[in-house]
Amino acid sequence: MDFRAIGRQVSNWGRWDDGDARDERGTTNLLTPERIARGATYIRTGRVFDLGIPFGPDGPQPGGGRINPVLLFSETGAGQRFPGAFHYADDYVFMPLQSASQWDGLAHVYYDEQLYNGFPSSSVGPRGASHCGIDKQAKGVAGRGVLLDVASYRGVDWLDMGEVITPDELDAVAAEQGCAILPGDVLAIRTGWRKKFLAEGDPNAFMAGEPGLGLACCPWLAEREVAAVCADNWAIEVLPGELDDEMLPVHMVLIRDMGMTLGEILDFEELATDCAADDRYEFFFCAPPIKFRGAVGSPINPLAIK
Amino acid sequence: MDFRAIGRQVSNWGRWDDGDARDERGTTNLLTPERIARGATYIRTGRVFDLGIPFGPDGPQPGGGRINPVLLFSETGAGQRFPGAFHYADDYVFMPLQSASQWDGLAHVYYDEQLYNGFPSSSVGPRGASHCGIDKQAKGVAGRGVLLDVASYRGVDWLDMGEVITPDELDAVAAEQGCAILPGDVLAIRTGWRKKFLAEGDPNAFMAGEPGLGLACCPWLAEREVAAVCADNWAIEVLPGELDDEMLPVHMVLIRDMGMTLGEILDFEELATDCAADDRYEFFFCAPPIKFRGAVGSPINPLAIK
Amino acid sequence: MDFRAIGRQVSNWGRWDDGDARDERGTTNLLTPERIARGATYIRTGRVFDLGIPFGPDGPQPGGGRINPVLLFSETGAGQRFPGAFHYADDYVFMPLQSASQWDGLAHVYYDEQLYNGFPSSSVGPRGASHCGIDKQAKGVAGRGVLLDVASYRGVDWLDMGEVITPDELDAVAAEQGCAILPGDVLAIRTGWRKKFLAEGDPNAFMAGEPGLGLACCPWLAEREVAAVCADNWAIEVLPGELDDEMLPVHMVLIRDMGMTLGEILDFEELATDCAADDRYEFFFCAPPIKFRGAVGSPINPLAIK
Amino acid sequence: MDFRAIGRQVSNWGRWDDGDARDERGTTNLLTPERIARGATYIRTGRVFDLGIPFGPDGPQPGGGRINPVLLFSETGAGQRFPGAFHYADDYVFMPLQSASQWDGLAHVYYDEQLYNGFPSSSVGPRGASHCGIDKQAKGVAGRGVLLDVASYRGVDWLDMGEVITPDELDAVAAEQGCAILPGDVLAIRTGWRKKFLAEGDPNAFMAGEPGLGLACCPWLAEREVAAVCADNWAIEVLPGELDDEMLPVHMVLIRDMGMTLGEILDFEELATDCAADDRYEFFFCAPPIKFRGAVGSPINPLAIK
Repeated sequence: MDFRAIGRQVSNWGRWDDGDARDERGTTNLLTPERIARGATYIRTGRVFDLGIPFGPDGPQPGGGRINPVLLFSETGAGQRFPGAFHYADDYVFMPLQSASQWDGLAHVYYDEQLYNGFPSSSVGPRGASHCGIDKQAKGVAGRGVLLDVASYRGVDWLDMGEVITPDELDAVAAEQGCAILPGDVLAIRTGWRKKFLAEGDPNAFMAGEPGLGLACCPWLAEREVAAVCADNWAIEVLPGELDDEMLPVHMVLIRDMGMTLGEILDFEELATDCAADDRYEFFFCAPPIKFRGAVGSPINPLAIK
Repeated sequence: MDFRAIGRQVSNWGRWDDGDARDERGTTNLLTPERIARGATYIRTGRVFDLGIPFGPDGPQPGGGRINPVLLFSETGAGQRFPGAFHYADDYVFMPLQSASQWDGLAHVYYDEQLYNGFPSSSVGPRGASHCGIDKQAKGVAGRGVLLDVASYRGVDWLDMGEVITPDELDAVAAEQGCAILPGDVLAIRTGWRKKFLAEGDPNAFMAGEPGLGLACCPWLAEREVAAVCADNWAIEVLPGELDDEMLPVHMVLIRDMGMTLGEILDFEELATDCAADDRYEFFFCAPPIKFRGAVGSPINPLAIK
Repeated sequence: MDFRAIGRQVSNWGRWDDGDARDERGTTNLLTPERIARGATYIRTGRVFDLGIPFGPDGPQPGGGRINPVLLFSETGAGQRFPGAFHYADDYVFMPLQSASQWDGLAHVYYDEQLYNGFPSSSVGPRGASHCGIDKQAKGVAGRGVLLDVASYRGVDWLDMGEVITPDELDAVAAEQGCAILPGDVLAIRTGWRKKFLAEGDPNAFMAGEPGLGLACCPWLAEREVAAVCADNWAIEVLPGELDDEMLPVHMVLIRDMGMTLGEILDFEELATDCAADDRYEFFFCAPPIKFRGAVGSPINPLAIK
Repeated sequence: MDFRAIGRQVSNWGRWDDGDARDERGTTNLLTPERIARGATYIRTGRVFDLGIPFGPDGPQPGGGRINPVLLFSETGAGQRFPGAFHYADDYVFMPLQSASQWDGLAHVYYDEQLYNGFPSSSVGPRGASHCGIDKQAKGVAGRGVLLDVASYRGVDWLDMGEVITPDELDAVAAEQGCAILPGDVLAIRTGWRKKFLAEGDPNAFMAGEPGLGLACCPWLAEREVAAVCADNWAIEVLPGELDDEMLPVHMVLIRDMGMTLGEILDFEELATDCAADDRYEFFFCAPPIKFRGAVGSPINPLAIK
């Protein structure tokens, strides 16, 4: 498989440019007002499922490139001597923006010295990306969401590290669930990898690899005009990957060529149980990124509302 | 005015306890599934308004207790030598959780050594609050939102520092806008203070004080069963405040007695223009906090969807 | 052993008070100008040994309460467009002040609600200690240093976890080395624990426990008027400790009762080799803390100059 | 003045290479053991002067590229439930390594895509410099120090912003003080700029510019084999600078061409008073950098011992 060829096939470069204004949003452009309004019609009972994981010392980062968030209080209320009765607490955090539930922005990954839509890789400097920052996704991501519960489809608690999810399997899961995939959908791929972490509590095992999408899913996503993909693993795609000599090819194709924002390290456990119970796998999905200027990611806590 | 007496009058302590499980969510309990589903019916055209401000060096913090977020990249992609074509960028942030658009959690403010619902103030330690942390609001805040555009009602760009907003004025604004306030609503109070900051760019002026709610608004909010209040200033309430010898009495009453989560430093400019244009001030409001364990606040980017 | 009784026996509370000025420096008061000048006479050849360990991701912190320092660049020089030829790099660090080579300040440890010299434990708040901060040690620590190479004395690469060093052994080491211990000395205790970490590279093993001083060494240090003690382990004292129901009793006695500043996680390997070679274990020791206001520790890179 | 020509004139590139081992220390190589030992002979009375400034919120950074250090406690001792009596406090810092008293390392500044000794500027990445990091200065800086009190020589509290210090004036100051400048000296240039900050407390004024060395001082320093220069301003050199179209030319020449480590934002007030009183401007200078791996600077608290 030549990931560059797949990249060219699914490329959205130029597609949403508006005269001189070059697009920096990618496939979230597919979230048109009409589709967002349609997505809202999937709110029936008002039950809410929070798909973000907790941010704290018990997170999935083993250290190294990324660490778990460090929360420290600048004020606890103790020792304060204000006039009257008032006391307050205040807190700081130091964290990698991609240490827990998060969007991968479009400047997160590149190859051949170009970001999505042809912006030069030199757009990314030590204090921010001058193009394709996560703040460009300020208005989203909101729309119709569909859970594709691959682990349940297979009848396992979780897929194993290195197991590839194929387009055929995605179709089969959707068919079994009775779901159509519609243009502008946000897909939530459940591999069980989060469930495994919850069972084992081992960050090193969580990060050592994962089951996930194979390269062949990229055209499948492009054909269906999917707006965004998120998953309960940490990289969407299968690891170790399908190519011997390329790292994270699905990232390269989806983010850099297709312009797709990816949601990682989410928790679909409660949602999946509910979907199985009421046999309804569609919902309204709402996951606004925090508007960090020029960042390549953002912490999120996506809500699925049924 | 005796803020403690008002606090007792509006107190929700014990109201949502469930046997031995003492409530830590407060007024977001008013966001019942039915009300959330009803809120979703206000999504008509699917237009999205992002109410968070940018997080970065141009923020409103003058330094001192809080600073603007510091974003730094651990990887820019330059100098990487992976197999194949892959390059990636990664970023860290150091920030006060309440430095820009944010929820005030229920452990943020207390008096008389008790937090909301009677939890002891010693619940708050240097690494987190063991009760009433912002992660307890994981499923929200989502529901029907109403903009109350006080600045437009007065015909000014912004109210001045120290100008009090009264219950009568809130009623008048709602009446002029043709809005009912319904149980479980999230109110967005526009004072113009954000517009002033955008015009002047002066963090010291922004933080020196503000127009905002007076103490008398607390019972008004309680009677209407409002689920949450947010504003385009930094503390919801008028500053300097109405009491000579008490600091931030509205915070003390709303957060500690009523158990209300407050949204601060938001930007309603685009939303307000739109509401004035289509004469529709209601919308679906969705602002999930990031689930920082035991934190007293969370950065947010609330979406208003019409 | 009753650590409180030992604490009372060696207590320096009040000893260096000057009228109303209560002492916040403790045993570094023993570093009188005369003794510092005498210490300088041990500089003979001008050879320098740096006793600090590197600060970076390969440090001894396994995560949890403390992490290794995280160094991030705000500028790398790339992408800068200044007038003329100028480029610059700039860096930030996020770190526990006690994550690598460090002084324990006198506000670091307390019991019975009192710090050294009777200051209340409430002196320590989330943003600093109002008494006994490490900045109070601004002028030092400098003076005569003596290496006590316990590992070499025993003929081992390193002592094992839990092995106690006794006063008799300290005397024996000094005797074998031909060293007198003089009032105002800074002692450097080599257990080999750093050598073990360098051999194994295992932060969890490094932090799991250590060989070190037993409680009986406290009076020994007090009688000899030792000004400061440092070691190549992370807590000076033996761990697991000698008392079943008290944690870190040597810390409690030395820091809180005696007022001694402790130097931890140092590297004496090169120095020890040199001392063995020239049979000279005395040197000038110079380890100024960084003047963090109100901090309970400071990173250091002590120099031993022979 | 052509700064590149001056740079070539004073260049130390290659001078201290040892076969294939290319030098990364620069002029601190001039601190030979003999000179360090000689420096120690200036310790006569043992009085110590700490030349570092306090690190905390009252520092000289107005925000922007650099901020003042933020110290936060992960433990205050409150709320701890250990067995026995033990309580401890622990602290974290987030800071630019050059926010207060600090060494500029040799990777801090470059031009024409080369660092000191010809290392490529690509040596500096977002997580560190692979060459010329401050950790390469681990053994120093220690040696004979000389205060050149330019402000006292001029009879002013401080020189004004933009005032140039010339080689002739340095000679005149040394002559009036009765000081010889010897090879391997560390020079401490007092401009009074720190005194001005202490009087005014205005970070913006401190950083707006400064009096300092002119370009002509570079050859003067080279001829005298000075090992390091430090000052009580924030950039050693005069600002605004002498060249219309080049920024910080003295930095470019001293750091990149000569390989000189620069000490900035120091406080010579107490030392200067003492030197004037006893008419002795020489001392032992000891300022070990913290060994941050690959950093371009390090916080310091230099000691001058007389």
